[in-house]
Amino acid sequence: MAETGAGMELFRYRGVEKCVLEMIESGALRPGDRAPSLRSLSSRLKVSVATVSQAYVELERRGVVEARPRSGFFVRPQARRSATAPSKAAPATTSNTVNRGALIRMVLDTVGREDILPFGVATTAEELLPVKQLARVLGGVVRSAQRRAVNYGTVIGDPELRRQIAFRAIDSGARFEPEGALVTSGALEALYIAVRAVTRPGDTVAIASPSYYCFLQLLENLGLRSIEIPSCPECGVDPAELETTLDRFDVKACILSLNFNNPDGSLTPEDAKRRIVSALAKRRIPCIEDDVYGDLYFGAARPRTLKSYDEEGLVLHCSSFSKTLAPGFRVGWLAPGAFFEKAFEIKATTNVSTAMPTQLAVAEYLRIGQYDRHLRRLRGALHEQMELMRACVVEHFPPETKITKPTGGSALWLELPGLDSIRFFYEAKALGVGVAPGVVFSARDKYNSFVRLSYGSLWTTASEEGVRLLGALAARQLAGARD
Amino acid sequence: MAETGAGMELFRYRGVEKCVLEMIESGALRPGDRAPSLRSLSSRLKVSVATVSQAYVELERRGVVEARPRSGFFVRPQARRSATAPSKAAPATTSNTVNRGALIRMVLDTVGREDILPFGVATTAEELLPVKQLARVLGGVVRSAQRRAVNYGTVIGDPELRRQIAFRAIDSGARFEPEGALVTSGALEALYIAVRAVTRPGDTVAIASPSYYCFLQLLENLGLRSIEIPSCPECGVDPAELETTLDRFDVKACILSLNFNNPDGSLTPEDAKRRIVSALAKRRIPCIEDDVYGDLYFGAARPRTLKSYDEEGLVLHCSSFSKTLAPGFRVGWLAPGAFFEKAFEIKATTNVSTAMPTQLAVAEYLRIGQYDRHLRRLRGALHEQMELMRACVVEHFPPETKITKPTGGSALWLELPGLDSIRFFYEAKALGVGVAPGVVFSARDKYNSFVRLSYGSLWTTASEEGVRLLGALAARQLAGARD
Repeated sequence: MAETGAGMELFRYRGVEKCVLEMIESGALRPGDRAPSLRSLSSRLKVSVATVSQAYVELERRGVVEARPRSGFFVRPQARRSATAPSKAAPATTSNTVNRGALIRMVLDTVGREDILPFGVATTAEELLPVKQLARVLGGVVRSAQRRAVNYGTVIGDPELRRQIAFRAIDSGARFEPEGALVTSGALEALYIAVRAVTRPGDTVAIASPSYYCFLQLLENLGLRSIEIPSCPECGVDPAELETTLDRFDVKACILSLNFNNPDGSLTPEDAKRRIVSALAKRRIPCIEDDVYGDLYFGAARPRTLKSYDEEGLVLHCSSFSKTLAPGFRVGWLAPGAFFEKAFEIKATTNVSTAMPTQLAVAEYLRIGQYDRHLRRLRGALHEQMELMRACVVEHFPPETKITKPTGGSALWLELPGLDSIRFFYEAKALGVGVAPGVVFSARDKYNSFVRLSYGSLWTTASEEGVRLLGALAARQLAGARD
Repeated sequence: MAETGAGMELFRYRGVEKCVLEMIESGALRPGDRAPSLRSLSSRLKVSVATVSQAYVELERRGVVEARPRSGFFVRPQARRSATAPSKAAPATTSNTVNRGALIRMVLDTVGREDILPFGVATTAEELLPVKQLARVLGGVVRSAQRRAVNYGTVIGDPELRRQIAFRAIDSGARFEPEGALVTSGALEALYIAVRAVTRPGDTVAIASPSYYCFLQLLENLGLRSIEIPSCPECGVDPAELETTLDRFDVKACILSLNFNNPDGSLTPEDAKRRIVSALAKRRIPCIEDDVYGDLYFGAARPRTLKSYDEEGLVLHCSSFSKTLAPGFRVGWLAPGAFFEKAFEIKATTNVSTAMPTQLAVAEYLRIGQYDRHLRRLRGALHEQMELMRACVVEHFPPETKITKPTGGSALWLELPGLDSIRFFYEAKALGVGVAPGVVFSARDKYNSFVRLSYGSLWTTASEEGVRLLGALAARQLAGARD
């Protein structure tokens, strides 16, 4: 368990940084103020003086504080800057054929490239995943259940895994039987099956705007049209706006990711979720829910799923272990409600069943009871990485930059009025920094002045340098735009 | 390597059985003849006298030979019967919407049920798969390549695996670069991607008749029409008949499995394959090739793939390791030729990428050079199982039964004039024996007097008893039909 020790030390040190940055951002510490002493922070945060000292050295290196001989650390003048949330888009007045494929492939091209900082892709750093433990569990299950690992599994998936998935759904307020869940090769396959189960080519599907680009790519690929409902970074999807859209357009299905929508990180309030489910049910419109970030909340309680408000079986709930455990395992699930039979058929004719060894490994990992503890640590780490990246953006980006403050998920959403996000993407890539240009998050040309930065990768000095480079690049581009 | 020892002993003993059965079937041994002595067979087949003795005891138990005190073994009177191949269907005159879903689900319902003999499903017995070795290799790669196993792989799949796949393709006469292959979750996913890459809903796709029922299910699920080209159990698909169909119908693509077509086991001759590729190329019609049985030939040389005759990139070659290594691993591939970009997009939007641990395990298994040796043993075992099951059918089924003698693959195709295969399926299931009723292998009501029996499972006394039960059941049904 070497990873745990190293990880905990890292998190402690980051915790101190985060605390100081929050005091600065909240105004509790102003430029020129003396920062709390090593001793006081040490006792308040219950970490060693050495850890606090390390954090201050780091904050000094980043220009947030400065050391004055015999006097301690002081907040530097430029350390605080205002940061407001980006704006919400205007409602759509027409539906679109979706055509973002080429642009999205360009972004995906940077996935897994070691020469590019991975701010452009929403993956969780492997340092935050229980890699060794999963490898051990996988090795164990293939030894003890060789025959089950090698033979065909059933179309719906391993019974123990489905039992664990159904059991965990209770945390999000939902109840479905293990027989009501279908194991899929990741959440995207769940979404693909769900979309095919409830639409035909040419149909119109309502999605939030901005939305995860893979939704757009999927709709494009299946010959579907999209109609975009504005998502507000601070309050998610407004049920009234959804209803207006449903009244005006012949919407056949809806794809929503209301718990930390990717890219704007918005969390739609519980009451709004309830109203959304009811508005869709009233019209008998199936609702495809993507909840891959639901477990990655920074607040006190897990937000509920749309599935938990579903009384008619119209919610097709999709999720996975890709953001929280092992993306390479490709284990996700679909609880398709009333559309089970159709979903079953599509799974059976797409690839028969999901790979068994990884199903068995995830089932065993859940069974031995390590998952919740891991999730707690992961949430803490992501929360801290978000704060660190956000503070760094606030510090290095032009003053007109607007930025979200997500309460979960893995990405920041920035608006830089006047930016050309495609040009920004290419220039950043040339500097070795990946970003996701805003344009890929809508089928309409709406977000070209937006950029998504993922904080899923471990925060290092290289990350900091990357954000600094992006900030300088943005400043140059905006200055050029003003000329 | 305990499995190898036991396996080899089993195969030796089977080899003797097979040799005697072949002599009986060829007429070299006639009813009443004295069978070769233990000593002569032992020296001829290079096995111990004990092994030959064991084989004779088994053949006696099955009623093929009888022991006469102090005289040795003699062929029993009913041991030989003629067995001709089933008939070929007439060419189709119209295309069909495909609607076999419900019937196929009924057959698939018996998959993995331990209370039903698995003659109904085309799987390879786990006793013939290198289960322990694969488990060891998988355990090893997840230890040594933990990070690669857990993280996202690329859309196209592990480079080493693709290199091995491209290298192995040379055996079948084909050449494509590792970059020209896309790793998929089994061959069915490769087919699904291939079909979607070259068709739109409503299009007509030419398939052989009979064809693997999953092709029909896939076409039905994607809203496609099929036009059936007769496949002859003894000579496969006739290029002239294909050309006639292409001239009469607006065919947008073709799905062919010319190496041991499932269910009729037919092998289309090389010259016919060449003409088929050329006929399709002349009309610019993409050809989707399913080659999952290509490596399971009983003859001297591996049959070539359609891909090996493809000069235009119009052949989309699909295959997998599911019949030869590990169905539960879900590792297959697609070499989509000119349709690479479209195939890439469909894979990316279906499930992003194939599970990494199983990809790494298969790549490593191929790399360490065990696969060819395993394939040789597997082919030998399947060949023997085919002979044993076939002899048993000849022995126990009504005399009017026609049966194939496949030169590869894993299934026998039986025609019983007057049989109702759906009723037969239900009655056999009630007796604990799975069969695949002929009707599921065509979208037209063509094969209701046919049954497919898979010999992929290990041949045991239970198998023999199962075939005996089926024979009696068929006799009763045919007698009833004549009344």
